[in-house]
Amino acid sequence: MNSSITLPELAALVGGKISAGEDGAVFSGLNSLSEAAPGEVSFLGNPRYAPQLATTQASAILISPDHTERPDGKAYIEVANPTLAFSEVIRFFGVPKMETKPGIHPTAFVAATAKLDPDKVHVGPHVVVEDGATVADGCVLHAGSYVGHGASLGASCVLHAHAVIKDHCVLGQRVIIHSGAVIGSDGFGYEFVQGRHLKIDQVGIVELGDDVEVGSCSCIDRARFGKTSIGKGTKIDNLVQIAHNVTTGDHCILVSQVGISGSTRLGHYVVMGGQSGASGHLKIADQVTILGRAGVVKDLPEKGHYTGFPARPLMEGRKLMAYPGKVPELQKRIRDLEQRLAALEARA
Amino acid sequence: MNSSITLPELAALVGGKISAGEDGAVFSGLNSLSEAAPGEVSFLGNPRYAPQLATTQASAILISPDHTERPDGKAYIEVANPTLAFSEVIRFFGVPKMETKPGIHPTAFVAATAKLDPDKVHVGPHVVVEDGATVADGCVLHAGSYVGHGASLGASCVLHAHAVIKDHCVLGQRVIIHSGAVIGSDGFGYEFVQGRHLKIDQVGIVELGDDVEVGSCSCIDRARFGKTSIGKGTKIDNLVQIAHNVTTGDHCILVSQVGISGSTRLGHYVVMGGQSGASGHLKIADQVTILGRAGVVKDLPEKGHYTGFPARPLMEGRKLMAYPGKVPELQKRIRDLEQRLAALEARA
Amino acid sequence: MNSSITLPELAALVGGKISAGEDGAVFSGLNSLSEAAPGEVSFLGNPRYAPQLATTQASAILISPDHTERPDGKAYIEVANPTLAFSEVIRFFGVPKMETKPGIHPTAFVAATAKLDPDKVHVGPHVVVEDGATVADGCVLHAGSYVGHGASLGASCVLHAHAVIKDHCVLGQRVIIHSGAVIGSDGFGYEFVQGRHLKIDQVGIVELGDDVEVGSCSCIDRARFGKTSIGKGTKIDNLVQIAHNVTTGDHCILVSQVGISGSTRLGHYVVMGGQSGASGHLKIADQVTILGRAGVVKDLPEKGHYTGFPARPLMEGRKLMAYPGKVPELQKRIRDLEQRLAALEARA
Repeated sequence: MNSSITLPELAALVGGKISAGEDGAVFSGLNSLSEAAPGEVSFLGNPRYAPQLATTQASAILISPDHTERPDGKAYIEVANPTLAFSEVIRFFGVPKMETKPGIHPTAFVAATAKLDPDKVHVGPHVVVEDGATVADGCVLHAGSYVGHGASLGASCVLHAHAVIKDHCVLGQRVIIHSGAVIGSDGFGYEFVQGRHLKIDQVGIVELGDDVEVGSCSCIDRARFGKTSIGKGTKIDNLVQIAHNVTTGDHCILVSQVGISGSTRLGHYVVMGGQSGASGHLKIADQVTILGRAGVVKDLPEKGHYTGFPARPLMEGRKLMAYPGKVPELQKRIRDLEQRLAALEARA
Repeated sequence: MNSSITLPELAALVGGKISAGEDGAVFSGLNSLSEAAPGEVSFLGNPRYAPQLATTQASAILISPDHTERPDGKAYIEVANPTLAFSEVIRFFGVPKMETKPGIHPTAFVAATAKLDPDKVHVGPHVVVEDGATVADGCVLHAGSYVGHGASLGASCVLHAHAVIKDHCVLGQRVIIHSGAVIGSDGFGYEFVQGRHLKIDQVGIVELGDDVEVGSCSCIDRARFGKTSIGKGTKIDNLVQIAHNVTTGDHCILVSQVGISGSTRLGHYVVMGGQSGASGHLKIADQVTILGRAGVVKDLPEKGHYTGFPARPLMEGRKLMAYPGKVPELQKRIRDLEQRLAALEARA
Repeated sequence: MNSSITLPELAALVGGKISAGEDGAVFSGLNSLSEAAPGEVSFLGNPRYAPQLATTQASAILISPDHTERPDGKAYIEVANPTLAFSEVIRFFGVPKMETKPGIHPTAFVAATAKLDPDKVHVGPHVVVEDGATVADGCVLHAGSYVGHGASLGASCVLHAHAVIKDHCVLGQRVIIHSGAVIGSDGFGYEFVQGRHLKIDQVGIVELGDDVEVGSCSCIDRARFGKTSIGKGTKIDNLVQIAHNVTTGDHCILVSQVGISGSTRLGHYVVMGGQSGASGHLKIADQVTILGRAGVVKDLPEKGHYTGFPARPLMEGRKLMAYPGKVPELQKRIRDLEQRLAALEARA
């Protein structure tokens, strides 16, 4: 935690170029453009906030070289990615990172047959690690998290408080699971027999690739058999539902409240916006972006952006959304035609 | 817990005026209009249930003075707000409120540096209160709830079983957090660099005002920096997603499965219906009501009701929803014009 | 766990009829059609996968007698329900079922007044069973699950890790509650008085019938008074919201992210597809199927399929969804009429 920084130090910190400002200037904190006080450092990330440059009280601003409108009287430091660079400023001024020392809290329960080196893993209060589980070095298991029988965590995973990893699921390295997320519950599978829904055993697992992150209260169900699989680098927001036997490629983004039905397969770099959904047994190609609240009901074999329900290519989908708004004009033109035609008919 | 009440006692209990019924009448329980048995007390809250007045077997009914249609043979007590008044009847006949005595359950873990008076706070089984946390007097921490490092709870907060408050988050007074809710997980923030999603540190907090209530399995993410802020008196239902850096005003209502994307700002007295959503970086004015399943994609600077996706003012939105249904009539009129025109052309 | 099976043994296992294949054939595992290796057993359940029969490397296939297209060179076993029959194959080759022995884990807390036979119930690590709760024989309470004061579990229920059953709720027999689900939180009820939302006490319970299953992070709220009631055999997926005083009939299916508002009543055998919703105080008849993402806003008194928002009978709803797409053609026909009419007018 630091309390002040000079302009050249700031430029060095973020790897940027000073384009305005006095070398002797000293800054003392950070904030967003709208909330910064004089003396604070801010940044212009989203262009939506550009008008705030004129009104902000921030004294130093990280900015893209491409954004050349820069009101006077402030220091500007040019960086390629101001949002990313600002993380360095946050770290510089910010609260020191929580230290989680290795060791097993006396209230935790680690089964005798679990593989876990207490000198290299943090096990917090009331954590449970069941028989046959493996927890690799560098993992941090926060309070009340749960590792099921035979489950396996690669190096340096983090389970936040009350995260649940069920039996036999497999996590790669550096996987982060947030509080309340549930990895490996039973898939939702029944057969309708003689008026009742018979439960179909769900004996597969969930496998999460390296660097996957799963948000709070998101659910990824185990496969009926085989595995539900999330590719490496894929990031999943809160309250997302991923059904049994779904496969996602690498580096996908699934925003909050997305739902993906059983056995659907996403390619690499797929993005699904908030509250969007996909039916079961579909194939969605690499680099497909599905806009928020869209609903995919058939295969999307081509990369590109899709919107609406049922989801269509962006331009087509937007047109379709606009068509209902054209009805009043059509009504008017038809009324006009009817009158003119009646006049002609009367004359004929 | 009581087993019977006379009509004058009942009127006094709810602060109402007897408009029909015999003073000697005695009532012995409560129920809804549709399920009440003879001798029971009921109420007409939602006018939707008015037809049930004719068929209910209830013997006494709390009713608004404005609702003058009152079938014979029952006792009626007039109160301004029958729904609210009925709470007194429920308390009178109901199960006694669970007593939660102060004290720390032997299976709980309260860190040495946590500030918490065991004579004035209830700490249930398997609760965890981490280092540096503050829990003010009158708080009730039910079984398995979690208070992270440096988090702070004002007086008389209630954490239900398995509620999670993460590091450094701040709760006002009388805040209620239901089971499985997660306050203060990381915001969903990445920058795309060289084909990978780099995690952006999320070092801000969540701040909940006095009298906020958060439903089960709802998620409120910590800010990237600064705070995600929920105004006092705001009530949040189950499975709601509130992203990083969102701000809500006071006394808002967010119904189940609502999603609000990052940095959006709600005014005071905003209502969002079930399954509705708002994109990021928007401003929504005081007293805006967003109907269920609507999707807000741009600023709403005027108070009023909004519906549809994209959300529009109520009347406009309703019309727009009705337009597709007018297509068959337009088709018919066009067909008719075509025939009549062809006839004229043949003659010309 | 077994490693191989002959064709006649396989036919006997699934109760099927060998329609192709050599008696001496031996199979050594199982997989889906698309991922099976030579020697493995697979099945054709969903007809969508029929084209994979031509390309699969599986050596034996469970198939419906009705599906007569069967490429050469494989063993086929006819069964009425291949999906269901395949469960037997999974059990034969699969991992042995986790054994959960009766007994109370030393880290669990079972209140003195709870009724629970430690010789007949499994109580895992960090489980909490509160005062006055009843847990019948054969129940399995996995790690960190919670049974509130006075709650009651019928015989052979399973609470998965971190499932939460709140005070006084009642579960029938063989009920399964998955991790993170919350049964019995307060309903979302307030009255707006003098600019504030006053909390209405929620003192009812949740009652779940025999053989109900509730998915991860689903929430079923307790009634204001009386009960929220889920009929026997009803299956609920993950992240589903069921508000206070809702009633569902028997054998319903509620797919992931469904939301049902307060006091709505579902009949028997109702199906609600993923991300669909229903407003409050509605009546939905037996055997109604609501398609995914549909939104029900008024009573549905007739059985049948419904789609769209607001939800309509399937055919009507589909037509309505198609109407906007007809606007360009209408525009073209109107333009054409306008030109022809102008020509006639010029001549007249």
